[in-house]
Amino acid sequence: MSEQGHVADRLLEAVDQKGSPVCVGLDPRVDHLPEEFVITDGDPVDQIEAVGRWAIKVLEVVAPHVPAVKPQIAYFECLAGDQGFYGLAAYATICKVAGEIGLIVVGDAKRGDIGSTAEAYAAAHLTGPCAVDAVTVNPYFGADGLQPFLDVGRDTGRGVFALVRTSNPSATAVQDFTGKNGMTLYEHMGGQIAQIGRDANLLGQRGYSLLGAVVGATYPEEARRLRRIMPQQIFLVPGYGAQGATAQDCAAAFKPDGTGAIVNASRSVIYAHNRPEFADLAWEDAVAQAARDFARDIALAVQKS
Amino acid sequence: MSEQGHVADRLLEAVDQKGSPVCVGLDPRVDHLPEEFVITDGDPVDQIEAVGRWAIKVLEVVAPHVPAVKPQIAYFECLAGDQGFYGLAAYATICKVAGEIGLIVVGDAKRGDIGSTAEAYAAAHLTGPCAVDAVTVNPYFGADGLQPFLDVGRDTGRGVFALVRTSNPSATAVQDFTGKNGMTLYEHMGGQIAQIGRDANLLGQRGYSLLGAVVGATYPEEARRLRRIMPQQIFLVPGYGAQGATAQDCAAAFKPDGTGAIVNASRSVIYAHNRPEFADLAWEDAVAQAARDFARDIALAVQKS
Repeated sequence: MSEQGHVADRLLEAVDQKGSPVCVGLDPRVDHLPEEFVITDGDPVDQIEAVGRWAIKVLEVVAPHVPAVKPQIAYFECLAGDQGFYGLAAYATICKVAGEIGLIVVGDAKRGDIGSTAEAYAAAHLTGPCAVDAVTVNPYFGADGLQPFLDVGRDTGRGVFALVRTSNPSATAVQDFTGKNGMTLYEHMGGQIAQIGRDANLLGQRGYSLLGAVVGATYPEEARRLRRIMPQQIFLVPGYGAQGATAQDCAAAFKPDGTGAIVNASRSVIYAHNRPEFADLAWEDAVAQAARDFARDIALAVQKS
Repeated sequence: MSEQGHVADRLLEAVDQKGSPVCVGLDPRVDHLPEEFVITDGDPVDQIEAVGRWAIKVLEVVAPHVPAVKPQIAYFECLAGDQGFYGLAAYATICKVAGEIGLIVVGDAKRGDIGSTAEAYAAAHLTGPCAVDAVTVNPYFGADGLQPFLDVGRDTGRGVFALVRTSNPSATAVQDFTGKNGMTLYEHMGGQIAQIGRDANLLGQRGYSLLGAVVGATYPEEARRLRRIMPQQIFLVPGYGAQGATAQDCAAAFKPDGTGAIVNASRSVIYAHNRPEFADLAWEDAVAQAARDFARDIALAVQKS
């Protein structure tokens, strides 16, 4: 394990320091940005640089309140420039700056492929100049598609969150597919992830694996079942706020001791300046207040449950 | 639909022109390249530029023999440069050059996310300077994660190949999960893809949808079942050559009229210079001969079956 330590230990320590198990998602959509970051002449490179400036400002504003951030790579990948994929230079910069100011960085890339190709993705996202603390991975390929990420994790302390139960409406059409024994696909996938994690034997000092799981807050009953199936996995919990889940829904992903999950909110925090209740505030103040409120609401809901 | 036409029609036309339903995968691994493209001083930007030169040469060498190419984005994504993700500029260039010399380009990105984020991926890979003719997508999210790609397809004629049965060994641990009625997950997923395709109503003149499916050649029995479940989908068939499937195995993915699939080979063609039987040839000649042999073997196997 690397000198920087096991990501699950570092994440739990950061949660203790900031007082709340939350994560702010960075989804830069040009049409949602504060006006000063929208480049009206439409030059793509200027727009990408403005997105970068905005995202760094957001990092600075939320850092006192939250332990982690989750840049969503898709919103950078679609900012093309003339040469193609120039927006990813902004993604790499933002991940680096976030780490420098002490935030845990989850790269939301949802990569996944057969083993030899997964090695290339693991190298791209967990080593080198674009390395993040953990990356999200799609486990439809099974164990050999996850193993290369865990192999890099063993050397670096960096981690993985594998999709188990996603937060979107049509998740059910695939993930509720029900087996002979009454078990659903998401439960089967949860069991697979738990087993792959046990086989890899990559536990930190506080009992959590480098291999975590994405479990949407929009399905709290499912989260409770998955909590029992995956005792060693930290859950990354999307779906709070704009996607409709409440703080109480999110609490279902935690253990009785209040650990074991980190709840993400993206739009409701980073675009707080567009919310009517914050209309009188400067955009940075709106974002700061939304981050504070989000962190407090989740911390309270986890304490009560 | 755009003036360039429906990608399934364009692909079938290109197959007729070249005389074989095959596709060459571009997986640039520095340690497999011909010596002249390995930068010994280790400068990452020089190495990326050398990879770009090699890939363009491969395109020129295989273009007379095959209708399509499949750049695997992971192998470009892991070529970082100092700034991060600089290798993707080479990916974008190669996709553009391949289109200019008349090849159909399948971007093997296996992206996938909830609907709002899938919109960003669809924009990144099917519009703008990095647009390919079709992109591979991971369907674990269900219909709302696929729809944004189909919406862009409706406007542009560009398409999608959704993973159904992957070619790797541990695919079975997830995709053979068996439902109450004896149906496996891969069959269920095939049924979902067929239905999403029918609902989208995006058929070309030859009866195939913009929504295709990835069905690995390493599981021919499964491919035969999926062929019946998804009559309107073109199958992208990985697994030939280095992954162990034979031309006969690949034939299972085709309809009796010899249409409906395109077989991919990557390592066995692009690294043919490393194969003992081609040891006496210049690397370009080895690649050309491997591409010719591959195209002929698949064409023969499909005719016979």
